[in-house]
Amino acid sequence: MTMSYEQAVAALIEAGRRLDARGWAPATSGNYSARLDDGSVALTVSGRHKGRLTGDGIMRVDLDGRPLTAGKPSAETDLHLALYRLFPEAGAVLHGHSPQAVGLSRATEADGITLAGHEMLKAYPGHTTHAAEVRLPIVDNSQDMAVIEAAIRPALLVPGAIPAYLIRSHGLYAWGKDVDEAERVLEATEWMIAAELAEASFRRAWTR
Amino acid sequence: MTMSYEQAVAALIEAGRRLDARGWAPATSGNYSARLDDGSVALTVSGRHKGRLTGDGIMRVDLDGRPLTAGKPSAETDLHLALYRLFPEAGAVLHGHSPQAVGLSRATEADGITLAGHEMLKAYPGHTTHAAEVRLPIVDNSQDMAVIEAAIRPALLVPGAIPAYLIRSHGLYAWGKDVDEAERVLEATEWMIAAELAEASFRRAWTR
Amino acid sequence: MTMSYEQAVAALIEAGRRLDARGWAPATSGNYSARLDDGSVALTVSGRHKGRLTGDGIMRVDLDGRPLTAGKPSAETDLHLALYRLFPEAGAVLHGHSPQAVGLSRATEADGITLAGHEMLKAYPGHTTHAAEVRLPIVDNSQDMAVIEAAIRPALLVPGAIPAYLIRSHGLYAWGKDVDEAERVLEATEWMIAAELAEASFRRAWTR
Amino acid sequence: MTMSYEQAVAALIEAGRRLDARGWAPATSGNYSARLDDGSVALTVSGRHKGRLTGDGIMRVDLDGRPLTAGKPSAETDLHLALYRLFPEAGAVLHGHSPQAVGLSRATEADGITLAGHEMLKAYPGHTTHAAEVRLPIVDNSQDMAVIEAAIRPALLVPGAIPAYLIRSHGLYAWGKDVDEAERVLEATEWMIAAELAEASFRRAWTR
Repeated sequence: MTMSYEQAVAALIEAGRRLDARGWAPATSGNYSARLDDGSVALTVSGRHKGRLTGDGIMRVDLDGRPLTAGKPSAETDLHLALYRLFPEAGAVLHGHSPQAVGLSRATEADGITLAGHEMLKAYPGHTTHAAEVRLPIVDNSQDMAVIEAAIRPALLVPGAIPAYLIRSHGLYAWGKDVDEAERVLEATEWMIAAELAEASFRRAWTR
Repeated sequence: MTMSYEQAVAALIEAGRRLDARGWAPATSGNYSARLDDGSVALTVSGRHKGRLTGDGIMRVDLDGRPLTAGKPSAETDLHLALYRLFPEAGAVLHGHSPQAVGLSRATEADGITLAGHEMLKAYPGHTTHAAEVRLPIVDNSQDMAVIEAAIRPALLVPGAIPAYLIRSHGLYAWGKDVDEAERVLEATEWMIAAELAEASFRRAWTR
Repeated sequence: MTMSYEQAVAALIEAGRRLDARGWAPATSGNYSARLDDGSVALTVSGRHKGRLTGDGIMRVDLDGRPLTAGKPSAETDLHLALYRLFPEAGAVLHGHSPQAVGLSRATEADGITLAGHEMLKAYPGHTTHAAEVRLPIVDNSQDMAVIEAAIRPALLVPGAIPAYLIRSHGLYAWGKDVDEAERVLEATEWMIAAELAEASFRRAWTR
Repeated sequence: MTMSYEQAVAALIEAGRRLDARGWAPATSGNYSARLDDGSVALTVSGRHKGRLTGDGIMRVDLDGRPLTAGKPSAETDLHLALYRLFPEAGAVLHGHSPQAVGLSRATEADGITLAGHEMLKAYPGHTTHAAEVRLPIVDNSQDMAVIEAAIRPALLVPGAIPAYLIRSHGLYAWGKDVDEAERVLEATEWMIAAELAEASFRRAWTR
């Protein structure tokens, strides 16, 4: 499911435009990547607004993070590459920032939240019923990517783990076999967090 | 009020674009259909993002669900077809997913909620005054469409029933004589749920 | 500040598109009008979606509501015309529906709410400071326009009255010398209601 | 990082369109400026909707506020010019109005709020870690710009001060070396306020 550099550039530009339209790409936050035919990775460069990316906002690195084209890769490149190394089937990684997901991560000190009973769980690859519960892992933030990566890795390898995790006070990582699937996982996870918030608001109102 | 396949394709693509812009079509959720001139049904295929449908994202089935063109029909095809069989005047069915409606459905174990006193009630066909109340039925979710269909059917046949119902933890079904009317019912129902949530928030704030 | 029929049609179509994009024109709700050069009024016809109006969605009536062109005028035509008769300087009337404004109107039985201290008050014509308070009148809904009109009229004639009022469980009326000014009044009023809701949410959170 | 008048006009029109799309430019609120090559300032004129600016909605003034082209400068011109005089590196100033930021400012009588632990803090120039806290100053509103300017100035000169402040019941000022950086600061600040509101909502729900 890998793609050419040209396909990756077009797909990541479009994904950025859509994430920004949903309010998930403020300032220059976020970074997006896709695995290419030759095993290298196309990745957003640092410091660009993801809602209005152009071709020069995307560069190529190898799986060890060495630049193959000009540009300064995103500070979080290592988190993308760790996912590609860990999951050979991963073809794209998207990292977005919604106020809801980050607000949720700050409201708890737990290492994750449970999402249960949602039909939307079926958006996760391999999930075929709402009658299930999954764990969205939450890992503490760090400016050292190796620290985040080591802390989150065990949760990603648990059987039945979903292809997403949340960095506390920071944002959501989601991945999939291609950009469409990664965006599907991201949208579904954000949507369930918004639905949980609406549920809580109705519960509070009805139990006054 | 039926339409040609070409008209249905155009109308369903546009409806998907609008529902997605309102945040009601995350991931690949949702499925939309329209009854055609020849008695068959145009229906979204499984697994496409409804905000960016193209013509090949829509197929034809007969009223028993047998494919008349290539493609895998949506898993919820049977719920659409049950509505067309039950209501000869139904020309289109839309199924959307807002965080508000799903949050509401999860905050209660009741088999419905009452919407009362809204001017917006007049968006439902045959309703001519705000001085009324209607029941929006809520049915438990299932991966067996026949179970959902059997459970919801009585509520749909109650005199004065509105052309909409909510599947718990899942989403809203709405229908009408054509795509425009189905979308009107969907928008009005979602809007009233949002207004009820805003009302609850103001009430809580004012009674602190 | 009156305009030609062609100018009015273009301005009302654009206003509808913008109000719908903000979520204030669900289903076929809303009706918009503008006073024309010849003293007649251009007005949206009944039953169209205001987010995608076309020229045939707008008709002309005289100040007594007699159709001057083909079409069924909006059910609320009389409320528009009453404003034009009452306020000779009024050149346009917009009627929108936000969940926030309607939620607010349902959370209170009062005949209005006070908006105080907002810089946004300066959006109302003739208001030059935030250090003021205004009354947004709320009138009970009715299917008899004459009942609404008689009930709200005294509040509109109070010295310092703002060019807006809210019909309970229904929506907001706003007017101005032209479509731009009416839209300015509508946006400012909706924005202040949203700000009051956000204020209440922060207060609740901080006083837990 | 200064720019030509033509570049400034294009950049300010685009910024207005984007701020309005996010709901931060209701009615005719907001004013935007950019420092030009020749030391003068391009600035939005008074009374225009910032979501649909055209070239004639922008004029030039010198650093003392004297008009260099036709037009009535925004009432808040002096706040823009004070920032350019205080911070030689400032190349653009944006002033937006979100319901969230204004709601927050009305919910407290404090002279600021603390933003702590957000990855988004790195959107502020010179900030390189989330493990920090910054103060967003809040100043009382006034119709006398000199009063606001004198009251806020000390907070702006505190070491580590962020390039943003909030006027109570009014809106947010943000600045940067160019329009992109000013918009980045504005988006990041608004986003963190929205995240704090979501956090508070989840906390309330979970501690019922």
